[in-house]
Amino acid sequence: MNIHVLSLFPEMFTGVFGASILKKAQEKGAVNLAVSDIRTFSNNKHNQVDDYPYGGGAGMVLKPEPMFHAVEKITEGRNPRIILMCPQGERFTQKKAEELAKEEELVFLCGHYEGYDERIRQYLVTDEISIGDFVLTGGELPAMTVIDAVVRLLPGVLGQEDSHIHDSFSTGLLEHPHYTRPADFRGMKVPDILMSGNHAKIDLWREEQSLKRTFERRPDLLEEMDLTKEQLAYIESLKKEKE
Amino acid sequence: MNIHVLSLFPEMFTGVFGASILKKAQEKGAVNLAVSDIRTFSNNKHNQVDDYPYGGGAGMVLKPEPMFHAVEKITEGRNPRIILMCPQGERFTQKKAEELAKEEELVFLCGHYEGYDERIRQYLVTDEISIGDFVLTGGELPAMTVIDAVVRLLPGVLGQEDSHIHDSFSTGLLEHPHYTRPADFRGMKVPDILMSGNHAKIDLWREEQSLKRTFERRPDLLEEMDLTKEQLAYIESLKKEKE
Repeated sequence: MNIHVLSLFPEMFTGVFGASILKKAQEKGAVNLAVSDIRTFSNNKHNQVDDYPYGGGAGMVLKPEPMFHAVEKITEGRNPRIILMCPQGERFTQKKAEELAKEEELVFLCGHYEGYDERIRQYLVTDEISIGDFVLTGGELPAMTVIDAVVRLLPGVLGQEDSHIHDSFSTGLLEHPHYTRPADFRGMKVPDILMSGNHAKIDLWREEQSLKRTFERRPDLLEEMDLTKEQLAYIESLKKEKE
Repeated sequence: MNIHVLSLFPEMFTGVFGASILKKAQEKGAVNLAVSDIRTFSNNKHNQVDDYPYGGGAGMVLKPEPMFHAVEKITEGRNPRIILMCPQGERFTQKKAEELAKEEELVFLCGHYEGYDERIRQYLVTDEISIGDFVLTGGELPAMTVIDAVVRLLPGVLGQEDSHIHDSFSTGLLEHPHYTRPADFRGMKVPDILMSGNHAKIDLWREEQSLKRTFERRPDLLEEMDLTKEQLAYIESLKKEKE
């Protein structure tokens, strides 16, 4: 997969793109990550990329020309998805990550500060994505977030060690608790069942813990799932306990 | 404000903490950002920080000792909020950012790969925060995201130029469209009203555009708001148009 990011702060990406899974994914050839400075596409002598808003008001607005020029230069006639990171976009989910992971090429546009000229949104982008209802300095962290979620799904990126089959949201449930050594840390103990060696019981305990945690923290997730008769009966028992 | 991050990949933070608003906020003395490697608190000769899960299964689990030691060393008896970034946590919102911006000190714990020993969650952390229903390689990007949202709210960090009064979510509505020069870009034009010089009409247009966009994209936000009689009438007219 080829991923190209357009940003006013390309230096923000070095740490994240140069470490951990994103670094390994590039070394394995699963993904090419490129970041370009929008300023280099400004086509004016002061490298100006923003200007005052028509109609007045505080803040600067990102001009349309540099963004259009940049996308045209990068895509060279190809038609990849052009993704604008913005708080008004569609909410990013694991399902969207899986969808984007099937693409061969993605272009991410990151605004900064006040806003973008509306024509970028209307005529240049194919997807607007938001990572949540909060305000950030720019689209850079949301773009890195989406890229991390997508790249780890690409074939060959995760080893079996850190497989994504048991991830939260992949099964539809929140994860069960994990424990490792020591068995007793300052009097805080690992549940006996995990040291019983009885794998059928351990599996059942983990499934129940997953259901319980999802019931307590995210009951909305349960509504979207096809639960088995046994799972439904367990949820019913949790409801009774709560009463 | 003092912010301390604990991570297995401290190098991930350099780009983001060294650019734009987070850089400026540190230069202005509004925030101190520190990142420590969890490995330096492992207290064993191989700097081991993770181990196999009790009960079997794929993936490694972050051990409790290094995280407890790290937090104790960093906080030196103070009691700041200890925030674990994890997909099972409370959903991060602008309201939570405003709440955290009032603290004097915050500690962020970032896991990576499979999971953390449950005792970290139960006995060490005060807050569990998720930025959304998707799976990332670790808690680093979520921590940077929360830190960016919080730091830009601190007094003196944003100038008037990039004030946060008109942000999406701060008013409860999505932002209206922005336009800047040129007035005509390849035949794509700026709405006439924004060049009319009539500021009362421009303000009304912007308010209606905000309402319209929120109605179209995020009707759930409207339900939580106290709308004026005029705003409600406008929403009613949008509903009729849609029918």
